[in-house]
Amino acid sequence: MTSTNLDIVAIGDAIVDVIATTDDAFISARGLPKGGMQLLTAEQADELYAAMGPAREISGGSAANSMAGAAALGLDVAFVGQVANDQLGDIFAHDMVSLGVQFETPALNAPPPTGRCLILVTPDAQRTMNTCPGASHELTPAALDADLIRSASITFLEGYLWGPERPRAAMLEAARIAHSAGRTVAFTLSESLCIGDRREGVRGMIEAKTADILFGNEDEVRHLTGCGSLDDCIGQLSQYVGTLVITRGSRGAVAVQNGERVEIGAAPVARIVDTTGAGDLFAAGFLAGRCRGRSLKGCLEIGSIAAAEVISHFGARPEANLKELAAL
Amino acid sequence: MTSTNLDIVAIGDAIVDVIATTDDAFISARGLPKGGMQLLTAEQADELYAAMGPAREISGGSAANSMAGAAALGLDVAFVGQVANDQLGDIFAHDMVSLGVQFETPALNAPPPTGRCLILVTPDAQRTMNTCPGASHELTPAALDADLIRSASITFLEGYLWGPERPRAAMLEAARIAHSAGRTVAFTLSESLCIGDRREGVRGMIEAKTADILFGNEDEVRHLTGCGSLDDCIGQLSQYVGTLVITRGSRGAVAVQNGERVEIGAAPVARIVDTTGAGDLFAAGFLAGRCRGRSLKGCLEIGSIAAAEVISHFGARPEANLKELAAL
Repeated sequence: MTSTNLDIVAIGDAIVDVIATTDDAFISARGLPKGGMQLLTAEQADELYAAMGPAREISGGSAANSMAGAAALGLDVAFVGQVANDQLGDIFAHDMVSLGVQFETPALNAPPPTGRCLILVTPDAQRTMNTCPGASHELTPAALDADLIRSASITFLEGYLWGPERPRAAMLEAARIAHSAGRTVAFTLSESLCIGDRREGVRGMIEAKTADILFGNEDEVRHLTGCGSLDDCIGQLSQYVGTLVITRGSRGAVAVQNGERVEIGAAPVARIVDTTGAGDLFAAGFLAGRCRGRSLKGCLEIGSIAAAEVISHFGARPEANLKELAAL
Repeated sequence: MTSTNLDIVAIGDAIVDVIATTDDAFISARGLPKGGMQLLTAEQADELYAAMGPAREISGGSAANSMAGAAALGLDVAFVGQVANDQLGDIFAHDMVSLGVQFETPALNAPPPTGRCLILVTPDAQRTMNTCPGASHELTPAALDADLIRSASITFLEGYLWGPERPRAAMLEAARIAHSAGRTVAFTLSESLCIGDRREGVRGMIEAKTADILFGNEDEVRHLTGCGSLDDCIGQLSQYVGTLVITRGSRGAVAVQNGERVEIGAAPVARIVDTTGAGDLFAAGFLAGRCRGRSLKGCLEIGSIAAAEVISHFGARPEANLKELAAL
C-alpha cells in the first residue's frame, strides 16, 4: 500500500441550496415531503420557486457539505461533482475552492444548468428539500481521476447520487479503484435510496462489501433493513459493514465497529435554526476523527460537535471555527 | 391631483449581494474601503471573488432593500432596476416579487451580466462593499413607465445609481414625472456621490429642489456640504429639502421638517452581525411611517426599528415580521 496525500475524496451532488423559511401550511398544501427530499423536474422546480418566499443561496450538496466541514476541521480533501458553466456553477466552485477543497471536475458547457435544491425551513427548524439535480446527475465515470482516488485514505460516496445510472456507475468504479489500492470506502445513505424498488440495489451494494464505513440515520436504516428495532438493524448491517454509524437526531448517535458498540448523546445547541446538513457534518466530523486516529467514541463526539454547529444557523456549511470547537 | 394606488416606486441598482466574512488584515492588505463602497470592473470583481472566502448570496441593492423592507411593513411598492437574463437576474426578480414588490423591468438579453456586490463583513459587523454593477448601470429612461410613477405617492431614488449617466437621466426624468403629477420625490445619498467631482452635481440637484425628502448618514452630509458640524449641515440642506433625515449609526437619527427638529436614539440590538442595509431599512421604515400618516418622531422610530432588525443578521433584507415589530 503506497502512502496517501489526501485524507478524503468525495463524490456527490454539486448543487446550490436556495433556502427560504415557510410555514407548515405551505408544506402540507403542496404535499411536500416534510423533513425529506424529493426530486423535481426543471418545470416543477420553477413552479415551486415562483410560489416560495425570498431566499438566500448557499452552496450545498450532501457530500460537498461534508467536505466543506472536513476542510474546516483541517483535513486535506477533494470533491468530484458535476456543475454547468453558469453563475450557480461558478458559485459552487468558488465556495469549494475557497474552503480549501480541491475541486477540478470540469464544468459542462451544455444544458442542463447547475443543480439547485429548494429548501423550505419550517419554524420547527425542519428542512424539506426539493432538488432539481440539473448538471449534477450528468456525472459519468469519465470524470474520475484514478490517481486522485488512489491518493486518498477514504473515498466517500453520497447516497443521493446513487439513484441516477451514470453517477452510480462512477461511484462503483471509484469504489473499485479505492479498494484495489487498499483504501477505505465510506457510503452515506439517503432516505430515497432506502425505500421502494431502490432498496434491493443498495442492499446488494452493502452485501457485496462495497462500503467499509456506512452512515445513515435511524429512519434510513429501518427502511433499508425492514427491521423494527435499532438493534436488529445493527445486527443485520454489521455483518457486511466494518464501521456502522447511525445518527439519531436529538437522541445522539451510535457506532458499531469490530464488535465494539458506542453510543453518545447529542451535543447541546442554544437554538436550532435549520437542520439542513446535520447528517453531512456528522459524517465530516466522524471521518475527521478517524483520519486523525481518534477512538470510536472520539469520532462520534467530533461528528456530534460539527452537526451541532451547522444546525445553529441557516445553510449546511460550517460558519464557526470547527477545528477549534472540535479541539482537533 | 389624482388618487394614487402605490405607496412608493423606487429606482435603484438591481444586484445580488455575495456576502463573506473576513478579517481586518484582508481588508487592509487589499486596500479596500472599509465601511464604504467601491466600484469594480468585471476583472477586478473576479480577482477579489477568487481571493475571498465562501459566501452566501442574498438579493441586494440599496433602494431594492428599502422596497423589500417597505413591503414587509405592509406598503404597496414597486421597483425599477435592470437585471440581465441570467441566474442571478432570476434570483433578484424572484426575491422582489415573492416579497410582494411589483417588479416588471424587462431583463436585458445581452451582456453585461446581472450586477453583484461582493460584501466583506469584518468581526466588528462593518461591511465593505465592492460592487460590479453589470446590467444595473444599463438602466435607461426608456425603462420608465410614466403611469407607474404617477400612481405612486413617493418616488424614491438611489444615490448609488446617480453616478452613471443613463440611470441618472432615468432618475431625473422620473422625478420630473412625479413632480408634474404632484407627487413626492425622495433621494438617498451614497458616500461615493458626496466626494470629489460628483459633489457639485448632487448639490445642484438638491438646490434645484429635486428631492422633497433627503436621506443621508452623518459622513455623507458632512462630505456633501463641507460643513464640520451637524447643525451647519442641517442649516445648509434644510434650505432646499422639505424633509431631511440624517442617520447617525449607534447615536440614532435626526430629522428636520418645516422647522421642526426631532432626534431619537438607536433601537437596541442584542448582537450586531452585519450592518449591511441599515440605512436602506431606516429609509424604508421612515417612508412607511410617512405613508401611514405618522408624526416625524413616529417615522424616525419605525426607521430605527427596521434598521435594528436588519443589522441583527447577515444580509440587507428583513427576516423577522417587521410589520409586527413596528406595530404598523
